[in-house]
Amino acid sequence: MKIAIAQQNYSIGDFGKNATKISKAIFDAKNHQADLIVFPEMSLCGSFPYDLLQMEDFMETTMQVLQRIATESYGIAVLIGCPTYCEDENETKVYNSAILIENGIITRRFNKKNLSHLESKYFKTDNEKNVFEWKKQKIAVCVGNDEPITEGVSLCINICEKQYKHESKCECKQFANTSFPVISVSQYGGNTEVLYKGHSWVRNAKGETIIELPYFADGFAIYDTDKTYEPIKQEKPSDIALLHDALVLGIRDYFEKNGFKTATLGLSGGIDSAVVLALAAEAIGSENIRVLLLPSEFSTSHSITDAEGLAKNLGVQYDIVPIKSIYTEALTALSPIFKDLPFSVAEENLQARIRGTLLMTLSNKLGNILLNTSNKSEAAVGYGTLYGDTNGSLSVIGDVYKTDVFKLARYINRNTEIIPEHTIIKPPSAELHPNQQDSDSLPDYNTLDAILLQYIENGKSEVEICKMGFDKEIVAKTIKMVKRCEFKRQQLCPAIRVSQKPFAERIIPLIAKF
Amino acid sequence: MKIAIAQQNYSIGDFGKNATKISKAIFDAKNHQADLIVFPEMSLCGSFPYDLLQMEDFMETTMQVLQRIATESYGIAVLIGCPTYCEDENETKVYNSAILIENGIITRRFNKKNLSHLESKYFKTDNEKNVFEWKKQKIAVCVGNDEPITEGVSLCINICEKQYKHESKCECKQFANTSFPVISVSQYGGNTEVLYKGHSWVRNAKGETIIELPYFADGFAIYDTDKTYEPIKQEKPSDIALLHDALVLGIRDYFEKNGFKTATLGLSGGIDSAVVLALAAEAIGSENIRVLLLPSEFSTSHSITDAEGLAKNLGVQYDIVPIKSIYTEALTALSPIFKDLPFSVAEENLQARIRGTLLMTLSNKLGNILLNTSNKSEAAVGYGTLYGDTNGSLSVIGDVYKTDVFKLARYINRNTEIIPEHTIIKPPSAELHPNQQDSDSLPDYNTLDAILLQYIENGKSEVEICKMGFDKEIVAKTIKMVKRCEFKRQQLCPAIRVSQKPFAERIIPLIAKF
Repeated sequence: MKIAIAQQNYSIGDFGKNATKISKAIFDAKNHQADLIVFPEMSLCGSFPYDLLQMEDFMETTMQVLQRIATESYGIAVLIGCPTYCEDENETKVYNSAILIENGIITRRFNKKNLSHLESKYFKTDNEKNVFEWKKQKIAVCVGNDEPITEGVSLCINICEKQYKHESKCECKQFANTSFPVISVSQYGGNTEVLYKGHSWVRNAKGETIIELPYFADGFAIYDTDKTYEPIKQEKPSDIALLHDALVLGIRDYFEKNGFKTATLGLSGGIDSAVVLALAAEAIGSENIRVLLLPSEFSTSHSITDAEGLAKNLGVQYDIVPIKSIYTEALTALSPIFKDLPFSVAEENLQARIRGTLLMTLSNKLGNILLNTSNKSEAAVGYGTLYGDTNGSLSVIGDVYKTDVFKLARYINRNTEIIPEHTIIKPPSAELHPNQQDSDSLPDYNTLDAILLQYIENGKSEVEICKMGFDKEIVAKTIKMVKRCEFKRQQLCPAIRVSQKPFAERIIPLIAKF
Repeated sequence: MKIAIAQQNYSIGDFGKNATKISKAIFDAKNHQADLIVFPEMSLCGSFPYDLLQMEDFMETTMQVLQRIATESYGIAVLIGCPTYCEDENETKVYNSAILIENGIITRRFNKKNLSHLESKYFKTDNEKNVFEWKKQKIAVCVGNDEPITEGVSLCINICEKQYKHESKCECKQFANTSFPVISVSQYGGNTEVLYKGHSWVRNAKGETIIELPYFADGFAIYDTDKTYEPIKQEKPSDIALLHDALVLGIRDYFEKNGFKTATLGLSGGIDSAVVLALAAEAIGSENIRVLLLPSEFSTSHSITDAEGLAKNLGVQYDIVPIKSIYTEALTALSPIFKDLPFSVAEENLQARIRGTLLMTLSNKLGNILLNTSNKSEAAVGYGTLYGDTNGSLSVIGDVYKTDVFKLARYINRNTEIIPEHTIIKPPSAELHPNQQDSDSLPDYNTLDAILLQYIENGKSEVEICKMGFDKEIVAKTIKMVKRCEFKRQQLCPAIRVSQKPFAERIIPLIAKF
């Protein structure tokens, strides 16, 4: 039996485009004399559709397109993921299903059992056994993280949508007790914040990987159950290479799927905006980006040199728009109120907000989408100005800690110096008052990120983190900062999710004396 | 048997303050010779704690404070709501429990069964029957929307946290089949976005209300099961009076529970900021508010007159800070890029963002919390500038449609003219270009809000709404506007939730071709 595997990139609700991709793969599979072709979880409608699943017309269209796919499937069987109606009329939820089409007719439906908390808002489960007999083989079907039926089974097909960083721990557990081949097919692609990685595979009965499709790219393969395959000994790409590719895809898909063409951002000469610009240039092309350098009276001369150097290295159009005159005008307007109160965080934030405003004005005027350049360490401790640094339609590195931003910079420069060396080695600074450095108010980033990793990603308490050997005072200060700026995080723009614990999935009440 | 009912206002995680209130009520109940005192759902820790429920130290403190309350409870029984541990060590979830304390000892635990989707992220359910024998009576206990056991029961005690607008439909259904008295005790108070209304009550076996505690205020009552009570014939306050009181409480508690003292906002002369200022003045006092009038070259003279009139009526300190010079300076700085491109939405938004920036600068300098003044109709159709109009720590009327804002203005003026009549009767305008009116780009608000009500609150489709008799073109245009500005809504500040469908509970993917 020959089974085709289609790893594709879908758009949420863009049924025409998704169906075209699916039809094309069915056509290819027939050309390869495949008996069956497998598409990922939720491939027909794209993922994740959130409340669209509760809209009648969204579900109706899904069913219509599924019927159309069925009529194109003569001479082959198709297993494809999409939401389907629950027959109970009192039920507002639907199923997350794998649909089996045989010779143009929908013959079976296998519903997902193991729902995440988010999924349980929209999906129902059932008690049906997800297994079918086909060509004298007993095939188990599992959707997402479901554990397959094992009894008497000779093959398992897993359709899924693997998020970046939802690592193989779960895959290992899920398929730990199988003694038959497993085919796992995932979609890939960016959908604003949600990013799927692809990396579909086939494992033999011993658990060895024998077919592997790429991360973050289209893939198509034929698995012949009658053939013997050699195990693949290919090494996994490095974490930083994968992270780089994930972010580039996240940007590219955000623009492509939204029909956006051009981008802008504020280039400070620092490492965050440098890395975001390099990633964006790779994703959508230097020629589609126009950036602003927005120096204030506190900017150092090397900031402009470094920023210009990067823009020139990438061939990105840039303009220098000094903000001093606007800043002065704003303070003059407020001077009857402020009188002779001393320089404070108000003036610092004012600079950041003028920058954010100028970037948005350019965005509104020319149609360039503003990319946000804040990182996760800053978001964690509130080191950034709301309605200033936090502006943007998409946060590229908002789920990436500062220490990883440095690694990304090195990776971007792996072949040639794109980001000026000085940008990478100089001490980080917001340059909002004379001689300011991040280390004036923050622990050094290695320590900070190590503590944040324990507190945010691993959910450890202050006491537990101190026991690990961190300085008590620094831990206390860090956690206090994290708690104090929850209100900022609740207004951030969506960030491409590449960590185990993105802030968007963490909810702390704003009023909490704890 | 005498049962005391305590309707109180709690702060999330502020265990000391909550415990003090609880102890005080236990003391009062003992003085009234009560046999039992009942406190609301989640009273010990405040509600809703979100991810704090997953933090070990939060749960530990809850248990310690519960023990302390128990030791104070000699000579009386206490039924009190709080989260409790699940004994299964592999389980990360906890129970939402009603704890029975008898004579200083915790004797029973009744766990909530009927969990909302949000609650199911944190809470487990069980199959125990929530009923106990006490003083020869069989008493059913139910938490929140749980349906009580009815068999052989002589009394039901419901502990809950009723949200504003989660109306009595559910209460009626829940207690439809009871033929015994029901005591329902809810907490009240604002917790940033979540607002509880109180309005605890006792109904007799016929379903008639015999004791009623106020909306949005402390309440304490003794119900004597051996006494006969006359049904209460009091009329319910009007919807707009309740909405007014809800918003005032929402603001007051936001400031009080966060330890904030002073507020600011931008006063435009329009109805939205006028209503928010009047509500804020009632909530925290005129003397704690300092507002800015931020006219541009497009502001009409009556806008300043109207805004000044309101500030004077309320006795609120105000400053007039014209934005023209800053606006001109910003456009001059950008002129090498914009060249001779015509005036567009970029210049309109620039004005709004300069205002937002000046307000935040004042907020940062003087410590006044910025109140957001956008309404729900605007948020629905994206009629507002991100990082400009949308700035603020708390959105007061972000969940109130424009037509209700008008009603609130009339209600505020019920005794005397606080909001100048001209502010209420003039056609709404953003005043961002000459002679602009909202009606240039939006349907009139009566029509708009009627369509939004069907689309957002009632979840009707475009086809269904057209069938109701609305103009097809206007419906299509409205829904298109709603779909196009999801990205703005995802960056809004938290709004006090007073509708059936706050935007924060509605998730539409940002990339969605549907």
